[in-house]
Amino acid sequence: MTRLSSQLAFILEIDKLKSILRQTPITGAERRQENDAEHSWHLAVMATLLAEYAPEQVDLSRVLRMLLIHDVVEIDAGDTFAYDAAAYSDKEERECRAADRLFGMLPSDQAANFRALWDEFEAVATAEARYANALDRLQPLLLNSRTGGGSWANHKVTRAQVLTRMEPIRHGAPALWPVVESIVDDATARGWLS
Amino acid sequence: MTRLSSQLAFILEIDKLKSILRQTPITGAERRQENDAEHSWHLAVMATLLAEYAPEQVDLSRVLRMLLIHDVVEIDAGDTFAYDAAAYSDKEERECRAADRLFGMLPSDQAANFRALWDEFEAVATAEARYANALDRLQPLLLNSRTGGGSWANHKVTRAQVLTRMEPIRHGAPALWPVVESIVDDATARGWLS
Repeated sequence: MTRLSSQLAFILEIDKLKSILRQTPITGAERRQENDAEHSWHLAVMATLLAEYAPEQVDLSRVLRMLLIHDVVEIDAGDTFAYDAAAYSDKEERECRAADRLFGMLPSDQAANFRALWDEFEAVATAEARYANALDRLQPLLLNSRTGGGSWANHKVTRAQVLTRMEPIRHGAPALWPVVESIVDDATARGWLS
Repeated sequence: MTRLSSQLAFILEIDKLKSILRQTPITGAERRQENDAEHSWHLAVMATLLAEYAPEQVDLSRVLRMLLIHDVVEIDAGDTFAYDAAAYSDKEERECRAADRLFGMLPSDQAANFRALWDEFEAVATAEARYANALDRLQPLLLNSRTGGGSWANHKVTRAQVLTRMEPIRHGAPALWPVVESIVDDATARGWLS
């Protein structure tokens, strides 16, 4: 297989990300659930708009590339619902296997590059990864809040669970923490969070 | 409205892009039509993988930001089918009005920045815009071909129409032109293009 054939095969393979459904709703549509591909797009646009709230200067290009591929492993591993503790027990193992197979379809230099971006996102140890992870938490909060509680009610999610889940925003985009508190307070007052 | 409120309002507004449907199918899903949000994600990943085929060195970060927002105007203006000549007559006017309203929701510095990126994409005058436009043509070709002709058959699209439509690839990613010819030849042989 030539370099270009491998690249085109990967591009067609990741089309499947458009069918991996998340628990988060989208606004104003007949479809109830967001998919991973449109979620990744939404985060990438957010990253360009909200960079001024990152705690340190971030390399936006790396943040974008990280966000664009951060969920690709879910093509094999599936989406793990944020508040499902049981499913989280083997999440890392499932996702590592998926990363091996999916990024392994690419020419070795690009496979290594994408794997490094994904590992960086998962490790949350750089300013770029902290900021990217903060956006990955903030976006479902915005959508759940805008859609009258979204997936929280179905899953009886509590206020404390949401605040714990949002914790990465304190580190990755601390200036946005007051937004989190205000949304969570409002959702509690409306009875969307128990 | 504070700067942050404007940014969050825009982020929620563009959630609507997930409901703007294109004529292109997605692979292996019950849904038949791709939406603009997942399309934009797909192009951005392609941009990171195929940059080596651009004719000149491109600023990848600008290409990514351009691709992420290139279809946002379709929230108001709708998707104009590539082979619908009548709808193309007022496309520019509809999209300009949409750009004024949508980007106008942002703080003025970011509104100007997004508008400039969109204008650059539309003008196809820089290496970045040529490469971005090439990917915007290549992606539906790949998906239509992978799905047994996709939207071509419904709309009785001809081989000549597709080759004309793909022309920007000659300029924005010339090394990918042989892929276009090979896919179009194959689609013609299979009777997907008349």
